[in-house]
Amino acid sequence: MHPRMTELKARLRDTYDLDMTASLLQWDQTTYMPPGGAEARGRQLALLGRLAHESRTHADIGRWLEELREHERELPYDSDDAGLLRVTRRSFERATRVPLDLVSEFQHHASASYQAWTEARPAGDFARMVPMLERTLDLSRRWAQCFPGYESIADPLIDAQDFGMKASTVRTLFADLRAALVPLVRAIGDRPRHETSCLRQAVPEVAQQRFAVDVIRRFGYDFERGRLDRTHHPFMTKFSLGDVRITTKYRLDDVSFALFSTLHEAGHALYEQGIAAEYEGTPLAHGTSAGVHESQSRLWENLVGRSRGFWGFFYPRLQAEMPGFRDVPLDTFYRAINSVQPSLIRIEADEVTYNLHVMLRFDFELDLLEGRLAVRDLAEAWRARIRSDFGLEVPNDRDGALQDVHWFGANIGGVFQGYTLGNIMSAQLFEAAGRHHPGIPDEMGQGEFGQLRGWLRENVHRHGSKFTASEIIERATGGPLSIEPYMRYLWGKYGPLYGVREPEAASATR
Amino acid sequence: MHPRMTELKARLRDTYDLDMTASLLQWDQTTYMPPGGAEARGRQLALLGRLAHESRTHADIGRWLEELREHERELPYDSDDAGLLRVTRRSFERATRVPLDLVSEFQHHASASYQAWTEARPAGDFARMVPMLERTLDLSRRWAQCFPGYESIADPLIDAQDFGMKASTVRTLFADLRAALVPLVRAIGDRPRHETSCLRQAVPEVAQQRFAVDVIRRFGYDFERGRLDRTHHPFMTKFSLGDVRITTKYRLDDVSFALFSTLHEAGHALYEQGIAAEYEGTPLAHGTSAGVHESQSRLWENLVGRSRGFWGFFYPRLQAEMPGFRDVPLDTFYRAINSVQPSLIRIEADEVTYNLHVMLRFDFELDLLEGRLAVRDLAEAWRARIRSDFGLEVPNDRDGALQDVHWFGANIGGVFQGYTLGNIMSAQLFEAAGRHHPGIPDEMGQGEFGQLRGWLRENVHRHGSKFTASEIIERATGGPLSIEPYMRYLWGKYGPLYGVREPEAASATR
Repeated sequence: MHPRMTELKARLRDTYDLDMTASLLQWDQTTYMPPGGAEARGRQLALLGRLAHESRTHADIGRWLEELREHERELPYDSDDAGLLRVTRRSFERATRVPLDLVSEFQHHASASYQAWTEARPAGDFARMVPMLERTLDLSRRWAQCFPGYESIADPLIDAQDFGMKASTVRTLFADLRAALVPLVRAIGDRPRHETSCLRQAVPEVAQQRFAVDVIRRFGYDFERGRLDRTHHPFMTKFSLGDVRITTKYRLDDVSFALFSTLHEAGHALYEQGIAAEYEGTPLAHGTSAGVHESQSRLWENLVGRSRGFWGFFYPRLQAEMPGFRDVPLDTFYRAINSVQPSLIRIEADEVTYNLHVMLRFDFELDLLEGRLAVRDLAEAWRARIRSDFGLEVPNDRDGALQDVHWFGANIGGVFQGYTLGNIMSAQLFEAAGRHHPGIPDEMGQGEFGQLRGWLRENVHRHGSKFTASEIIERATGGPLSIEPYMRYLWGKYGPLYGVREPEAASATR
Repeated sequence: MHPRMTELKARLRDTYDLDMTASLLQWDQTTYMPPGGAEARGRQLALLGRLAHESRTHADIGRWLEELREHERELPYDSDDAGLLRVTRRSFERATRVPLDLVSEFQHHASASYQAWTEARPAGDFARMVPMLERTLDLSRRWAQCFPGYESIADPLIDAQDFGMKASTVRTLFADLRAALVPLVRAIGDRPRHETSCLRQAVPEVAQQRFAVDVIRRFGYDFERGRLDRTHHPFMTKFSLGDVRITTKYRLDDVSFALFSTLHEAGHALYEQGIAAEYEGTPLAHGTSAGVHESQSRLWENLVGRSRGFWGFFYPRLQAEMPGFRDVPLDTFYRAINSVQPSLIRIEADEVTYNLHVMLRFDFELDLLEGRLAVRDLAEAWRARIRSDFGLEVPNDRDGALQDVHWFGANIGGVFQGYTLGNIMSAQLFEAAGRHHPGIPDEMGQGEFGQLRGWLRENVHRHGSKFTASEIIERATGGPLSIEPYMRYLWGKYGPLYGVREPEAASATR
């Protein structure tokens, strides 16, 4: 090994460990920290953020990267060290362009804004958040301006989450997807609604947990290297490749919420737990993009967890754990968890309309950043869009523009497209896995997931950040990102479920 | 304020927050971390340790302290800033004398030794720990040698835990205490043993916890600024003055273990929660010494929690929570929790013999450090001493020289005397509190502790580290540290309990 590589890796390990330590501070803040700890915790997170930034942007790293250019050229593209150098270079260049002052300003503002939102949201008080959001927008623009040469000011923000993507590519992709989705949403809208009342029953938390744990163990989530806790909002976090934790929230009147959020977070966690152990402590030891990460969570949540085959095996187990379901036929349950219906809240939306929620947010992010929409007009624009997209009235901004934490945690731009990119990728990857392992559906019907997990681990997980999202998709599926498998999946599933058929003109093109 | 004070405080706050962050990493390691997280956690702790050391010893601090000498002389001795400068100077001088390499070596060795001990202890395999302990001894000597001018090589180690103490003062104090204790132990040994079988009953964890929580809430432990978790060994830790946590361990066949360990840790926590809020983020925001800290835990555990008055109020509540005690008379229970009996295990020892356990360890620490005892002979020396002090045979080193984590976590020297210093101080402080507030016993009999807690907060807690242990004792009790109140307390309690009387010669001197 090039001697500089050793020094570089040691330095990168410190940066990594500072990031991981900050993640533990955050995890504790949302799980177990008593209220009295909040003030100091904010200070401690700011300190760790500063130290990580200093470590990430240290002049040594720039010098070593220069010294290693020659060495990098000699390495095969897909060698680990070449990947490490690519990712480190990218991260160093990004981090060094942003002044530390702006980073700290962002961090402090994010705390203040989040704090205000926790009160403004329940009160439906959008006006209170206007100045906060204006400041976030200003800071986000200043952040983006550190990366001149963009087409859209949103590009640097999108690129930071989904490397290689920009506003124009996402916009085109989303326009195509929207055109393909609308006929499906309309066709379903003309059909009788699925009955979902069976899900609204009180199931004790312990039973919900036991069942969800049984499922994710079978998925392959490793509790020796993880754990499941309760938080207000479910999430996945990690403190090393050996410690990848998930959280969920139990709703006592809706068993599906904790269940699917647990499967979702377990999907994220399987990605991180599946990264090659030798990447530990390096920038390769993370999922490669927001989109690919979301493809893993959505794949396990939806393509597996809401499939008929899956429930053929698990429904009797659920009934054994939750006696209230003993009189509910599998088919009723299956239709309930796959009910498509326009709704106000993104995180409760079904697979089909979910993407329209994302597109709305993505469009507004561009409108805000590119100056076509003023923050003060956002809540009204939101209501208008929900009216036109879903035919629904937003009764309260709590369930409108205030609903998602992202913007109010000072993230505007680049934070929503990954959800829909993930949906698109999830189907493309699942289809490719099925081509390589035709036995996957049979396995799923027996509560086994070895082939699917193995294929994902081999083709997606183990690489961590070594390859970009498009490289992963190309290598794993043999072609570029495409909405076709996703639309095939949706029509294939919801066509029979709702007794609707794809217009011939559309299916003919695929 | 002197302008340099602002800079100094900002720097000290970073050091503090690095220490607190490391504490959270450790807390998580013992409470919730999955096994797979261990390796990275060790690395992360080493990193935080290094950063804290660098921060604590930064040349700026030395320069600022020099610049502030004049300012310090002008400040009243008991002003907060004078205290801050004294403590910072002491900590800076101590930290800068020890080379970073030695600190890291210690840290790595501590992990390895602790890890080995977790396996060697259950196996009773002292031989395996010999090389580990030899290395610990060597490192401890090298650490002590960074502070030349000592009388005993143990002095710097003792001073680090109990500032102002040295081997010779502790040795004299302990010799006096031993001489006073032996007649009491002998007298009790001649009397019939207390029946303790009522404690050996299975009580569900949730009932144990509910009762203990009720008690410590009444003590004044603030759950808005703390929480109670389960760990293998009970402890108290903090991440800020607003977040002071305790842990306990539930034994399903002995209700007294979790109960008294919870009261003990709550005593530590009351100290930290009682420190003046304005000290947050400074080196004043910690208890001032191991001894004073232990005085607080032992006071609440024993002088309060094992007293007759206390149980007059709480026993009916315990019986309501734990039906197995409904047929056990209060007096039987009271005698059971105050049974004096030679035993092998320090942490399970009664109030009277406990100190003999501590003295044994303190003596061996001196023997090891001063070269009178070789590590390989330690287990045998232990057995001989237990035989002569208690008349007991040690059947297995697991319950002999291997029983305490301290030495095997690479702490030899200075780590045990604090336990007995704490016992001595606890009685002296409790007596002084009673002089100022004669109503304390009545309050205790009603499950109220406001006067006692208020007096402790005012005279001990709020000062944090501003005053040394001897200053705290002087100011709070009006005199120097003395074993007299402690012996008065022990005879006053155990005399009637065992029907024994203090030899007149002894009582005449007090």
